[in-house]
Amino acid sequence: MNLLIKKITSLQNAKVKFIIKLRRRSQRTKSNKTFVDGTREVLRIMNNTNLIQEFYINKELISETLLSKIYDYALSNCTAIYECEKNVFKKITYRENSDGLIAIVNNTKKKLDDIFLSKNPLILVADGIEKPGNIGALIRAADAAGADALVLINSKTDILNPNVIRSSIATVFLFPVIECNIDCFFNYVIKNKIQTVGLIPVASESYITTDLRIPTAIIVGSENTGISEYCKKRLSKKISIKMNGHNDSLNVSTAAAIALFECIRQRSSKNKN
Amino acid sequence: MNLLIKKITSLQNAKVKFIIKLRRRSQRTKSNKTFVDGTREVLRIMNNTNLIQEFYINKELISETLLSKIYDYALSNCTAIYECEKNVFKKITYRENSDGLIAIVNNTKKKLDDIFLSKNPLILVADGIEKPGNIGALIRAADAAGADALVLINSKTDILNPNVIRSSIATVFLFPVIECNIDCFFNYVIKNKIQTVGLIPVASESYITTDLRIPTAIIVGSENTGISEYCKKRLSKKISIKMNGHNDSLNVSTAAAIALFECIRQRSSKNKN
Repeated sequence: MNLLIKKITSLQNAKVKFIIKLRRRSQRTKSNKTFVDGTREVLRIMNNTNLIQEFYINKELISETLLSKIYDYALSNCTAIYECEKNVFKKITYRENSDGLIAIVNNTKKKLDDIFLSKNPLILVADGIEKPGNIGALIRAADAAGADALVLINSKTDILNPNVIRSSIATVFLFPVIECNIDCFFNYVIKNKIQTVGLIPVASESYITTDLRIPTAIIVGSENTGISEYCKKRLSKKISIKMNGHNDSLNVSTAAAIALFECIRQRSSKNKN
Repeated sequence: MNLLIKKITSLQNAKVKFIIKLRRRSQRTKSNKTFVDGTREVLRIMNNTNLIQEFYINKELISETLLSKIYDYALSNCTAIYECEKNVFKKITYRENSDGLIAIVNNTKKKLDDIFLSKNPLILVADGIEKPGNIGALIRAADAAGADALVLINSKTDILNPNVIRSSIATVFLFPVIECNIDCFFNYVIKNKIQTVGLIPVASESYITTDLRIPTAIIVGSENTGISEYCKKRLSKKISIKMNGHNDSLNVSTAAAIALFECIRQRSSKNKN
């Protein structure tokens, strides 16, 4: 196989226009693609998937080592490489201080049935979370804890939003993130015998005394509105993390991480505590 | 007492110039003041402290209820109120969508000896953390866990940075945050018989099997560089949070929160687990 390398010198190039259009959600949905801007994120996708369809590089900004990695990936995966002149790259980058590497990545939309459930399932569920930064942080927390998936219900944010990609350090492409309807989700957990445990600040039961060793879905809501009423009514259990300071709530991803890691702790301990 | 209310109609007003200058760290240090932009944050300071020196309001943007709270606070604390015309307020606000309230707040710089140590001390220590958003999140996590203080060593960021204020939802004014020299910190913990437990990804001991029921300072480093070598050598213990996914690290405030809440859990349990 040969490397397909093209040069882009004009701001009017159709590829340039396409990448800029991908900043719009509608265009990402229509094309089922997104752009990933930054070496750290692109490298993670390169190292773990074959989802990259095109590279856009500015040779002045990237190292020889990185370039050779890009060539290797492109050869193995038939990925096109577009060398952009400085002004072209400046036009397509989304970052203030770009490091010279952008990738066009195919979306792999996953469904609930695509989740590879572990022996003792653990799922994180985010209800109505809007901020892309929070969704990215939730993905990172669920992945770090070793959960099976993150499920987004009542979601208003497109998971291919550049800020979801950045805040998850591109983990959104490696870890199962599923957007689904709230009723489908509850059918799924009933079918799979998974308890649903919602984090609710006013709940009297503490997360540390709740049995999380059985198959569990931990549900978190937004800091402002919490878990939706419709979802709240269907929960198996409501739990809280006791706040000891001036704040009446934790950041949603922090609260989720505390509950997820408590679940992992309980499962790693021989005795219930 | 009377209310001191003045109108500002000119962009050339000295107060306007002063607030804009406060965006610079040097000016905040020199004046020992900062500005807090936004109702949520200002309200939290109003409800908990008498640190507010001046209010800047745009009457078109704030409600009658809020205005009456501002008047009450101003009367009780001799706080001046400046009513700004729309264009003046637009000039001084730091936010994209301002909600019409800015406060000038006095700094209350705290030292290690100002910490009111609880019976069984718990301190969070951040080594070399640069991002204001992370410092804000660490303050929030330490406060939520009910820790005694957050200590910043090798700090490069001014704690009065507007993004620290915003990401901590102004908790930086309510919760003890101390910047200090690393040697002073270790002298302090030795004097107070507090163990120092560092979160280090490669440490073999797990945070869940470490005894955190005794007086403890939990130390976290930056995601990129971790805890400094000089600090690492002085630690009582090195612990890790096992990562199960594609990421080799958690966000620093998430990791800190997991360790802090594990400490709280251990202390609330009768038996060691």
